[in-house]
Amino acid sequence: MGEIRKIPGGVTAAKGFKAASTAAGIKYKDRPDMAMIYSEADCVSAGTFTTNLVQAAPVKWDKNQVYGGAAARAVVVNAGIANACTGKEGMEYCGQTAGACAAALDVPEDSVLVASTGVIGMQLPMDRIEAGIHAMAPLLCGGEESGTKAAKAIMTTDTKHKEVAVEFELGSVTVKMGGMCKGSGMIHPNMCTMLSFVTTDAAISKELLQQALSADVQDTYNMISVDGDTSTNDTVLLLANGMAGNPVITEKNEDYAVFCQALNYINETLAKQMAGDGEGCTALFEVKIVGADTKEQAKVLAKSVITSSLTKAAIFGHDANWGRILCAMGYSGAQFDPERVDLYFESAAGSMQIIKDGVAVDYSEEQATNILSQPHVTAVADVKMGGATATAWGCDLTFDYVKINADYRS
Amino acid sequence: MGEIRKIPGGVTAAKGFKAASTAAGIKYKDRPDMAMIYSEADCVSAGTFTTNLVQAAPVKWDKNQVYGGAAARAVVVNAGIANACTGKEGMEYCGQTAGACAAALDVPEDSVLVASTGVIGMQLPMDRIEAGIHAMAPLLCGGEESGTKAAKAIMTTDTKHKEVAVEFELGSVTVKMGGMCKGSGMIHPNMCTMLSFVTTDAAISKELLQQALSADVQDTYNMISVDGDTSTNDTVLLLANGMAGNPVITEKNEDYAVFCQALNYINETLAKQMAGDGEGCTALFEVKIVGADTKEQAKVLAKSVITSSLTKAAIFGHDANWGRILCAMGYSGAQFDPERVDLYFESAAGSMQIIKDGVAVDYSEEQATNILSQPHVTAVADVKMGGATATAWGCDLTFDYVKINADYRS
Repeated sequence: MGEIRKIPGGVTAAKGFKAASTAAGIKYKDRPDMAMIYSEADCVSAGTFTTNLVQAAPVKWDKNQVYGGAAARAVVVNAGIANACTGKEGMEYCGQTAGACAAALDVPEDSVLVASTGVIGMQLPMDRIEAGIHAMAPLLCGGEESGTKAAKAIMTTDTKHKEVAVEFELGSVTVKMGGMCKGSGMIHPNMCTMLSFVTTDAAISKELLQQALSADVQDTYNMISVDGDTSTNDTVLLLANGMAGNPVITEKNEDYAVFCQALNYINETLAKQMAGDGEGCTALFEVKIVGADTKEQAKVLAKSVITSSLTKAAIFGHDANWGRILCAMGYSGAQFDPERVDLYFESAAGSMQIIKDGVAVDYSEEQATNILSQPHVTAVADVKMGGATATAWGCDLTFDYVKINADYRS
Repeated sequence: MGEIRKIPGGVTAAKGFKAASTAAGIKYKDRPDMAMIYSEADCVSAGTFTTNLVQAAPVKWDKNQVYGGAAARAVVVNAGIANACTGKEGMEYCGQTAGACAAALDVPEDSVLVASTGVIGMQLPMDRIEAGIHAMAPLLCGGEESGTKAAKAIMTTDTKHKEVAVEFELGSVTVKMGGMCKGSGMIHPNMCTMLSFVTTDAAISKELLQQALSADVQDTYNMISVDGDTSTNDTVLLLANGMAGNPVITEKNEDYAVFCQALNYINETLAKQMAGDGEGCTALFEVKIVGADTKEQAKVLAKSVITSSLTKAAIFGHDANWGRILCAMGYSGAQFDPERVDLYFESAAGSMQIIKDGVAVDYSEEQATNILSQPHVTAVADVKMGGATATAWGCDLTFDYVKINADYRS
């Protein structure tokens, strides 16, 4: 496999991609709340979207554009209002947003993608959206700073902006890929309001771009959960403009494998950043299932543990309440023998076994608490059935999660 | 249908049933933590148990006894330690508990049922269990007071004891039925640590008793959730000793229908008491789905809403954040048209429509907040597809839920 090197930056790391942001005053006051991504050249695009039956207007808009096959040139994103459950009016606003962006950038209307995150059920203030677009168009530029500002502008209850970039070689050509995302509550992607935007200057066919993305989200975004609520707005967009100049990837060769490896690094990094910045959370909680019969079984077990409220509250309390972990595995629906399970806790403070064959070993509660007091805690459960593994990422359940969500709209 | 009249009392309301309780010091100090139920005559028994793959030792013990068909005479219950994930030792303790009870009461060992609730993974202190049994045996008596004390002794994080009783006629014979339960966290029964015990002096065949119970738990206990965690110890036991003297119910006749109606009243009342006393909660949150195509669809939609962390936090905040309700319906897996949904909020403070055809009506936020500030709040969603309905019961998500569960073991 090729070498994937982390580099500074995010959505503007790849050649030809520019970004801008502005404080449009959509709902937040005195902070940037709109971002724009622009590519100098036509992009092939791929997307994965929420599986919620209730789909926000921008999700419907993007599905049409991405699956319809039009070249993509720009993405307009706003934070504060989700444009979900907004009826026909909401759909019309997507068209107006795309139209305003197309006119401002002199690109076709069907090359503009849109994304929104925030409160469900409010209508967008179109005058401010349009003013924001006009403000951003002349500010578009490459370089790290504009990418980072865009990543900050799309935050809602996020406490940190989230971006990552890598470079790698396809043959003798150096290719770059970078991304940004937001997501802090209503995070249980099945394909949340999770929004993620990944750009690359790789040349790759639209078909393979979508295949690579669709496969990778299963092991990355779809393996995180903050609160078990699958949003109406979840969107991952992947744009490839080909400006790196590599031979176009049109088959599943070694170049495709390296591309997928890079994509997985970007997506997993962004997904972990989201889980680690879940609303109110104090720790990233990682659950690895090993020794499973099938990957699907391992995934079901891992996701059941990271979504258990009781387990999440115990992690907040630095309490090695392993019974809740075993309990959550037990109600997951996946088959295993509870009396064969071994369980370990790991963190930067060390590693220790807690359960052997379904029963507690004689462990030190003090050492366990010490391990569980780190900002990144991992539970590893071995079900001793086979060779399949899976990892899921969540966070602890805290007072602040409740506080944030008891008065989110006010 | 017959008339079902609520009467004072609980598990000792029916003829021939006695109860006792004691402070055995199993884990709690200075409060009763063991209870015993005894029937003067042999009972036919029915039971439903957790579907968690991880099953506590007392669940395995009771399944053997109930499904094996032995007559039941007594139930021994302890709070504080769940006797789950305790291996062979845990199973041996069930046998020793039954043995000690049988000896103290002079009944067959296989007529003794056991139930435990509390921390997973700790072993029971058998010396205290046995001392508790010897203390309770001479205290057994009928009457309201002993039933109420038993209901208090089985509490863990519960803030209120839970019991109910009714009487009704089968032909010319007056029959009584009463029950008690506990359950506050790890409540998401699929057939929590929910424990429920219902006694009746009706005469009914074992087969019909189990059928009546198995059917009714689907609409009662299985429609409540506090935190989405299905316990390893969930148990409902229903004992019928026939001492009312009605003609034995052996077919699905009118008497059976009345019996089922009474059983539903007892189970629904106990289930709502549990949901309304969920860990840390300030409100019982009821969700009714009407106009569904099938009852199964209505149930899936109702349960998805009551288990949504975001919706539960909004209820705590008295925030009419209806988008979260529609969102939770959308990811439930059940099919419906989001653009046809009507939504109403109801409570003792009034009733109001919030959504019509998937979009917000022009409602007063102040009035909505007023309705949502009551201790029992109902959301009614009409999906306009057919005539099926279902109701689920949950509670709000509060600071105290997190507090209770971040340091439960300490």
